[in-house]
Amino acid sequence: MTDIDPTAAYPVTPRNRVKRLHERGRYDRASVWAVLDSAMLCHVAYVIDGQPYCTPTIHWRDGDTLYWHGSSASRMLRHLEQGMAACLTVSHLDGLVLARCGFNHSVDYHSAMCFGTARSIDDPQEKRVALDRMIDRYYPGRAATLRTSTAQEIKATTVVAMVIEDASAKVRTKGVGDDPEDMDLPIWAGIIPVRTVIGEAAISPHVPAGVERPADLAVYRPGRDFAEALAEAQAIYEGK
Amino acid sequence: MTDIDPTAAYPVTPRNRVKRLHERGRYDRASVWAVLDSAMLCHVAYVIDGQPYCTPTIHWRDGDTLYWHGSSASRMLRHLEQGMAACLTVSHLDGLVLARCGFNHSVDYHSAMCFGTARSIDDPQEKRVALDRMIDRYYPGRAATLRTSTAQEIKATTVVAMVIEDASAKVRTKGVGDDPEDMDLPIWAGIIPVRTVIGEAAISPHVPAGVERPADLAVYRPGRDFAEALAEAQAIYEGK
Repeated sequence: MTDIDPTAAYPVTPRNRVKRLHERGRYDRASVWAVLDSAMLCHVAYVIDGQPYCTPTIHWRDGDTLYWHGSSASRMLRHLEQGMAACLTVSHLDGLVLARCGFNHSVDYHSAMCFGTARSIDDPQEKRVALDRMIDRYYPGRAATLRTSTAQEIKATTVVAMVIEDASAKVRTKGVGDDPEDMDLPIWAGIIPVRTVIGEAAISPHVPAGVERPADLAVYRPGRDFAEALAEAQAIYEGK
Repeated sequence: MTDIDPTAAYPVTPRNRVKRLHERGRYDRASVWAVLDSAMLCHVAYVIDGQPYCTPTIHWRDGDTLYWHGSSASRMLRHLEQGMAACLTVSHLDGLVLARCGFNHSVDYHSAMCFGTARSIDDPQEKRVALDRMIDRYYPGRAATLRTSTAQEIKATTVVAMVIEDASAKVRTKGVGDDPEDMDLPIWAGIIPVRTVIGEAAISPHVPAGVERPADLAVYRPGRDFAEALAEAQAIYEGK
């Protein structure tokens, strides 16, 4: 793992400065990384011939470098030769906020936007290492237990790396924001929380009898908060 | 609600054609709308001065028109005067797919990408109607129970409308995709499902005693699947 001070802040630039409700903004690495590391799904914005695309994918992180991957045939990944401006965003919806007027309805959330230049990793050995990291970041220790990827599999996969040049995290947790003059109105207001939880794992019917669920899946206990499990897996992966 | 045949397909164009794993692609409105209507959170990609941004927000839908909103001060919303190319994506992560080799690891998901031109709604009355629809789409019947929005509140809110010009849905549910020659390897493979569930609502401490939880929140029962609740709220809102 790259050794970067997590308390150090990203530079604040015109593109990452939180303009709307700036009191919700954070620029330190620890805040941004906490959002990234507790999610598997991200969305990447990029531009091809002036057209914006918003592609969902899974990401992984090593220090200030974000990674994602896909087929060498995919739209985004075929345009990476020269490096491509990208914005990778992770968002967690935490709750529905109901107020006494429409204007003060909101949602609780925490999110991170990361800006940089996405580049494909071309060296096969470097790709192999990055893909093993993807497996081990989600399932710590699992890569070494798997059938080794073939050269053809490595070739068919495009791995993208993006050093985070600037980033921001944004958090809303302030409760219901009713106006003082609305407080006595006889209207229900409150917060309905939502969270993503892990279900019961289903073993593939093709796995030979006697194969036990491995230790690398221990963090994904049924009923557990998925974001917590992902953050724990990242901490194990980083050796913390 | 706009009356559009949900079985009719969107045109397939170079930008919405599913290039990677095209057998997962769907272009009919019912498939796209089902993904949109079972989510509150979306991500919108847009471009300002060549820089892509990926902004999380909540969306609502009336026929082929998608809406989102924000402060009139926000970055995206200040660039809408001339209409702005945008891509709105909704993604549901359904499960982690673990295989016998790294290459066949995947995730189960369903997602939709919608392309169009985002425009702000400028007429105050039209904005008011759209914002009431946002409330009623999420909490059917609630708008009429709220303190009416002031002219200042309407002015401070930018509402964006985007007619879906083309769109695609993509679904992965095929189970573990192990290669035939990997089937006998003594490695655990399977699927770990994840889902987003509703928690126990917490009433705001400022609500006067005696105010009951209203019927418009009935779909958000604790423990219920959040995507199901959102789809049901949309169906109620559409009068189905």
